[in-house]
Amino acid sequence: MTQRRITLLAGGVGGAKAAEGLMHSRYGQHATVIGNTGDDDRFHGLWVSPDLDTLVYSLADHIDRQRGWGRQHESYQTLNELKAYGEDSWMTLGDLDFATHIYRTNQLNQGKSLTQVTRSICRRFDISMPVLPATNDVVQTRIRFNNQWHSFQEYFVQHRCQPEIEAIDYQGIRQARITPEAEAAISRSDIILLAPSNPVVSLNVILAIPGVMDAIRNSQAYVLAISPFIGGKTVKGPADKMMHLLNASSDSQGVASVYQGLIDGLVIDKQDKDDALALRQQGLDVCVMPTLMSSLDDKIRVIEDALDSALAWSTQKEAC
Amino acid sequence: MTQRRITLLAGGVGGAKAAEGLMHSRYGQHATVIGNTGDDDRFHGLWVSPDLDTLVYSLADHIDRQRGWGRQHESYQTLNELKAYGEDSWMTLGDLDFATHIYRTNQLNQGKSLTQVTRSICRRFDISMPVLPATNDVVQTRIRFNNQWHSFQEYFVQHRCQPEIEAIDYQGIRQARITPEAEAAISRSDIILLAPSNPVVSLNVILAIPGVMDAIRNSQAYVLAISPFIGGKTVKGPADKMMHLLNASSDSQGVASVYQGLIDGLVIDKQDKDDALALRQQGLDVCVMPTLMSSLDDKIRVIEDALDSALAWSTQKEAC
Repeated sequence: MTQRRITLLAGGVGGAKAAEGLMHSRYGQHATVIGNTGDDDRFHGLWVSPDLDTLVYSLADHIDRQRGWGRQHESYQTLNELKAYGEDSWMTLGDLDFATHIYRTNQLNQGKSLTQVTRSICRRFDISMPVLPATNDVVQTRIRFNNQWHSFQEYFVQHRCQPEIEAIDYQGIRQARITPEAEAAISRSDIILLAPSNPVVSLNVILAIPGVMDAIRNSQAYVLAISPFIGGKTVKGPADKMMHLLNASSDSQGVASVYQGLIDGLVIDKQDKDDALALRQQGLDVCVMPTLMSSLDDKIRVIEDALDSALAWSTQKEAC
Repeated sequence: MTQRRITLLAGGVGGAKAAEGLMHSRYGQHATVIGNTGDDDRFHGLWVSPDLDTLVYSLADHIDRQRGWGRQHESYQTLNELKAYGEDSWMTLGDLDFATHIYRTNQLNQGKSLTQVTRSICRRFDISMPVLPATNDVVQTRIRFNNQWHSFQEYFVQHRCQPEIEAIDYQGIRQARITPEAEAAISRSDIILLAPSNPVVSLNVILAIPGVMDAIRNSQAYVLAISPFIGGKTVKGPADKMMHLLNASSDSQGVASVYQGLIDGLVIDKQDKDDALALRQQGLDVCVMPTLMSSLDDKIRVIEDALDSALAWSTQKEAC
């Protein structure tokens, strides 16, 4: 049996766990990760790509495991000094992390694409599994609260996801275009896996980029999502406060409705096993398993079990 | 007697010592420093102004006294990480220092002038004495060695002043223009003091900026230079390897010839007292004193003695 090609669509922390599981799994050799760039923003004039960095730092095992983001052995001399200059410092950027942002910004200013820069960053960390942005164009999630539009990081970091969200927008998305690299990865995939990331501000941004849905539809891939909800709650992040924006509930059912027409199968947590019947009645393949990914072994097990199931189901379909 | 207005033209390390002496002297309250920007360059996409920073860090007492440049309590996490990305790291930039460069670059990119940004940087360090670039335009000292043109920092830092210099050029100088702030400071000066800085790559860059010599000539100021040479050698820096480029010797005589027609008086070191007669015969006022500035007391003494002499001489001239 030839090795199956897997493409993972991933957001930040939850996406990075799935990416680690994938890279270290028996599916890792022909796998690609497409990361979310909707959280990208400029800080102190430097271009920061939080989700791509979380993916790369996690895959490199340089991530601060306690926080789930940022670098290990980090220090904050530069940020503290910028604060002394009167600069906003609510976006926590460490000295090691600053090097990434300085490097990225400089490369982008020299005409490199975000895809090229991300490849160079991966090379520095000896990550052989491709990590790709879905687009090289600037697409930024904007969140309206208190009757004003804010950047995603203002909502997420500065205001700690506290404000009631009134509306959401993916600024720049209409002018954006999928990259040839992301399109090629999707097109030749046997399985497309949607990480247990925030459907509203992580995966939906990727999916809404012109060209992405077409590439998925034109591929022969089996599409499988892992629900980010366990018992109606997320492990981390504000997805449960956001699903209503897509008229969906914060549970497996909500995930199924958001991804309706896109996914063939859904992985749900053991705690949500009672949802399985209804989901199957909607025509979905459903896999019930413990989905919490704490250790590296957890991550590998979840990804391998999910992909094993997807392969079995896709083979059944081919047989029909 | 009203307070006399002093403008100091200064390069990096030697200039900073004079600037400290001036700020803490009894002449400090109505003093201005004009710094050299010919050493400025872009590193990792960030705009670095080494001489202005040396001035500011020294005046703020945040300078690394051992090296004479850079910040105290500095760390190098960002630079080491940039090196891991394959970036050149011969230009030693610390984490605290990076904040200055990030801040400066961001402000410049937002349309602020170097004068405005330098003012903000001074404010952060509670430095009330104005520190001004002579120009907001980019003027860069280029040095030819091994038959190729190089940036000043390549010569100075990367190649440690080792190569034989073939030629020197101040790139961009013809299009540059003195700032209104520097022009005003010079115009209303009672005394213009040339710091014991490198005449070739520090003070000459300032003096060659269109508008600077006119402003000095149009002012009523007495112009006094402090020779950077003690016994034919510089305390720090490569001035002694450069004077031949201006067809001048590396001593008081050479300084007098480089500044001929510009200065009214010259401060020379006790070790060079034998030069005094010849200099006086050229029509210069000459002050002989120990010019080595190690302690803050040294710096204040040299500056006060120099300015006291200049005042006495200028009063004599007015009386004539």
